[in-house]
Amino acid sequence: MAEQRILDCIKTPADLHLLTESELGILADEIRQQIIDTTSKTGGHVASSLGAVEIILACHSLLDEPNDKLIFDVGHQSYAHKLVTGRLDKFDTLRTYHGLSGFPRPSESPYDAHPSGHASDSLSVASGFAKAKLMRKTDEKIVAIIGDASLAGGMAFEALNYIGTEQLPMVIILNDNEMSISRNVGALMKHFGNIRANNAYRNTREIMQEKLESGGWFSNAFAEFGKRTKDSMKHMFLPESMIYEQLGIVCTPPLDGHNIHELRAMLKLVLETDGPVLMHVVTKKGAGYEPAMADPERFHGVGPYDPKTGKSVASTASGISYTQAFGDALVQEAKCDNRVVAITAAMEGGTGLKEFHREFPDRFIDVGIAEEQAIGMASGMAAAGMKPVVAVYSTFMQRAIDQMIVDVALPELDVVFALDRAGVVGSDGPTHHGVFDIVYARMVPNMRVLVPSGANELASAVHTALAIGGPVAIRYPRGKDASCTKPDKPELLDVGKAIVRREGSDIAILAFGRMVEVGISAADLLEKAGISARVVDMRWAKPLDADAIAKAAKTKLIVTIEEGVINGGAGEAVLDELSALELYAPALVMGIPDSFVMQGNAELLLSEIGLDAEGVSSAIKAKLARL
Amino acid sequence: MAEQRILDCIKTPADLHLLTESELGILADEIRQQIIDTTSKTGGHVASSLGAVEIILACHSLLDEPNDKLIFDVGHQSYAHKLVTGRLDKFDTLRTYHGLSGFPRPSESPYDAHPSGHASDSLSVASGFAKAKLMRKTDEKIVAIIGDASLAGGMAFEALNYIGTEQLPMVIILNDNEMSISRNVGALMKHFGNIRANNAYRNTREIMQEKLESGGWFSNAFAEFGKRTKDSMKHMFLPESMIYEQLGIVCTPPLDGHNIHELRAMLKLVLETDGPVLMHVVTKKGAGYEPAMADPERFHGVGPYDPKTGKSVASTASGISYTQAFGDALVQEAKCDNRVVAITAAMEGGTGLKEFHREFPDRFIDVGIAEEQAIGMASGMAAAGMKPVVAVYSTFMQRAIDQMIVDVALPELDVVFALDRAGVVGSDGPTHHGVFDIVYARMVPNMRVLVPSGANELASAVHTALAIGGPVAIRYPRGKDASCTKPDKPELLDVGKAIVRREGSDIAILAFGRMVEVGISAADLLEKAGISARVVDMRWAKPLDADAIAKAAKTKLIVTIEEGVINGGAGEAVLDELSALELYAPALVMGIPDSFVMQGNAELLLSEIGLDAEGVSSAIKAKLARL
Repeated sequence: MAEQRILDCIKTPADLHLLTESELGILADEIRQQIIDTTSKTGGHVASSLGAVEIILACHSLLDEPNDKLIFDVGHQSYAHKLVTGRLDKFDTLRTYHGLSGFPRPSESPYDAHPSGHASDSLSVASGFAKAKLMRKTDEKIVAIIGDASLAGGMAFEALNYIGTEQLPMVIILNDNEMSISRNVGALMKHFGNIRANNAYRNTREIMQEKLESGGWFSNAFAEFGKRTKDSMKHMFLPESMIYEQLGIVCTPPLDGHNIHELRAMLKLVLETDGPVLMHVVTKKGAGYEPAMADPERFHGVGPYDPKTGKSVASTASGISYTQAFGDALVQEAKCDNRVVAITAAMEGGTGLKEFHREFPDRFIDVGIAEEQAIGMASGMAAAGMKPVVAVYSTFMQRAIDQMIVDVALPELDVVFALDRAGVVGSDGPTHHGVFDIVYARMVPNMRVLVPSGANELASAVHTALAIGGPVAIRYPRGKDASCTKPDKPELLDVGKAIVRREGSDIAILAFGRMVEVGISAADLLEKAGISARVVDMRWAKPLDADAIAKAAKTKLIVTIEEGVINGGAGEAVLDELSALELYAPALVMGIPDSFVMQGNAELLLSEIGLDAEGVSSAIKAKLARL
Repeated sequence: MAEQRILDCIKTPADLHLLTESELGILADEIRQQIIDTTSKTGGHVASSLGAVEIILACHSLLDEPNDKLIFDVGHQSYAHKLVTGRLDKFDTLRTYHGLSGFPRPSESPYDAHPSGHASDSLSVASGFAKAKLMRKTDEKIVAIIGDASLAGGMAFEALNYIGTEQLPMVIILNDNEMSISRNVGALMKHFGNIRANNAYRNTREIMQEKLESGGWFSNAFAEFGKRTKDSMKHMFLPESMIYEQLGIVCTPPLDGHNIHELRAMLKLVLETDGPVLMHVVTKKGAGYEPAMADPERFHGVGPYDPKTGKSVASTASGISYTQAFGDALVQEAKCDNRVVAITAAMEGGTGLKEFHREFPDRFIDVGIAEEQAIGMASGMAAAGMKPVVAVYSTFMQRAIDQMIVDVALPELDVVFALDRAGVVGSDGPTHHGVFDIVYARMVPNMRVLVPSGANELASAVHTALAIGGPVAIRYPRGKDASCTKPDKPELLDVGKAIVRREGSDIAILAFGRMVEVGISAADLLEKAGISARVVDMRWAKPLDADAIAKAAKTKLIVTIEEGVINGGAGEAVLDELSALELYAPALVMGIPDSFVMQGNAELLLSEIGLDAEGVSSAIKAKLARL
């Protein structure tokens, strides 16, 4: 690294305006190398970031930022963007505690126009910038970069519909890497060819046409229509972009997303237009790094790896992951009950459903990045007598809360919401922590909420949720349960019954989920200070165990601990129950306070919040001292 | 009515199979008359129900229900369905307390496949039924009826994408009545013609083509593409259905939605196919009833009216509606600050924005039934320096909670959420009450939540929310504030400061929103029993006034009252604050208990729940007796 790189001279994106296209090409190589060097140590979203390097350089070499706005969808692909917007020197802190975010963050840089993280919102946000520009009669350029998988989300469609209708001045760069996060997703762009070749589609069309042609006056009147439609379809040589044309958005032909000259030439052109244009760019995930191109799914989000071979550095953590325990448990349930169906929204691997998919291909459904469809569909399936289990990250379930309320809870259907990545998730930061789920699930009538405290409990929770029927949410964290390698045979849990994990008489700690372990460790610390603490694994955030709460109220202090926001959470539910029981006992409600949790090692974050053994025991001692 | 009607003989939809098409025509007339007779007394969704009579009769005359499934979107249009599925004798109880719901409800009839109410979910639900059918290899037919406005919702698009990809066996009847709920909505189907004629679109296309043709090697390579696209567009003679064809869904030509023969002939045909078919049906809102055809917007949802003239029976309630007070206040704010923008999701009239639209046409935005786009767009506009106010019904905001969290609260943008129809709304019932908003707003960091107790307070809340900046929700009820005809000049409210409305020393009632009035009346009743009650208008559900709470804790009992669910609500927030203040005082948390609130007169419903002066004072007396 003795040699000076172009990358080292880039302090702001304006510096890119001075480079020739061949220099931009060299810069692209340097950026790829930097991304590999850094992410091999930090982990990260490697494949998509490598795929988008040239797109990002083309944009920055032509835009005048931060006046012009570049908006990323999801933001996985933004590493090159970070490297050319003055963040090279901090790049080795990527995704670490107090380090650079793995996503664009306006709080981090004026070049980050929007806090990306959840799919499909970039076009809506860009439409807002474009509309503001029209209102204020300013002349900034607005460019959104969105991947093909994100276009399947309903929010993106709502935006396209509006953008086309209003003819908003903006450029949409469709980063078409021909791969959603997991490979089996029915995203919009992927299937046109297949659908046309599909027998059902052809049969439908042909049967209708035949019947119409052989019928009487009515049929004759419509037979011509079918023929014309068919003819028209033949003329559609590029159907995937025609759908956007129909929404009023001019589309370019597919461009080579790794050819800087081609990208710049077209971008220059489309930036001059005053209506919406979709620039269709074909890229390769992991471009320029053999191991990532060979296995883009693993390199979507990857931990530390050997930069030479691409092999992941083995995790030292022992035990089974919650995700795996859930997937295994669901396979067992499905073996015993052929009504059990698994639904995912583009997260087959992430939610532990790969084995389920292999074992029960007919009962596995991936709807793509479309959580509303996932829940709406589950509603219909349950009404038809099936037992759908929707496995979704807690944070992405936020996209379909209305569907949980109206489509599932109101008709009291048998739908299980398996909320993975609940609590603090670590390096992905505030857009990805699953800290609201206890609140939004427990506010809904007819919902029951299980909060398993370990892999064994999770298996029993899955079994119980399916056995008791009705709408049930199960929330469980990212990572491993160190105390378990293979869950025991699941047991049927009593609804709303807690279990005492550690006896004690001075105070009672009512803990939810992973916080049970923290509570036990805190109790051990307290014992050394002469305080005898009972630790109760509440198991259910709803309904609560009133007996356990009443017993707790007989101690000097009730402590609740949950890995979720305090506002509206399980701790407040305990206070409410106490009040209803007419018990007025001192209580300490612990959980996530009223601010967004930042990124970093999950244990570190929890410890910062005070949700570790040390923090909990100290808070309890301080509280007792004040009583 | 001495004469026997066909309608009186219809006990189940199977009876329709025995009728001739001309008898079905007579039945359609009888049904229209019945709808007008009943709704002129009860009020209801008249225009859409009149428009869908023939569609519904065609379906029931060919389907074998409840084995076959008929799924309504929104469900406004289902009155004819209710009349031919055994509910004629209860039809005069429509939308009343314990009467027939205005929407399909599985709890009401086996012929109601899904609890409709929120737009755009029917296709997802139907896709679930269709997928279950494939899994179980059964042979039921699945038909969804969806209006054109609902198709603009992202959830409908997610479903279409999945249905097309999977070639699910189902019929989608597009009820194209050429009108969304309010007239200015940019719904998908409406604008193709306009877009093609739009100058920006034509210019964009032509400028690109010209430049490409005049350029070098790069341009030449792509110029051909543009020409071919243009040619292809010319061949598209029916663009609005082609978009569905591109998603893999076979479309019929537009059918006359009031011609039973035509509808039945096509439906017979499409029911035989084994892939998805969209049956495009053109109807007229209010068909068959002159006053409703002349003013379909008023007859979308109308109160009692004179069946002869269509004139609404004047409401006797005095005072200004909250909706009007909000609209007026926003106009005033917009006059003083040209950054203020109003955004609605197809509810211009319903959210009181008609005058705003007239006064500031350039700053009024209607995105159609697309709440995710409304919030995402507000995020972009706020990031660009504008001050968007999104006016949306509380219950429909449930569709965009994730956007509130990620797109607005995380970057702390200046977006005001004006949540109309908060609390118990009355005759529309459980899908329409706005009882979750305090919970889902207060769980989100950076959010502040205003709960004005009257029209004056609402005007001040709007003023305050815009003045303080950041993400702020204001929630206010349906109906009128009887004590106010025109709000005073708004004042700037102190953030998190409550105001004492009635002094008292024995107990303290901390009331939110409209419940302040109930609290005062309850205090009057309590006074007669010798109990002196302070009543505090909390004004803010977040942040709470800790001083007011601490003072309340010095009385014998703290009572909280809110028009929202107790689970996670403001009352629990008060308990949490008490605990944080280390005050262990008896409390009584009043609000909506953990079950869905049914339909009927709002006062009656609140009274049933115990949220009236009588109920509150009794509960307080009982609680005091137990202390």
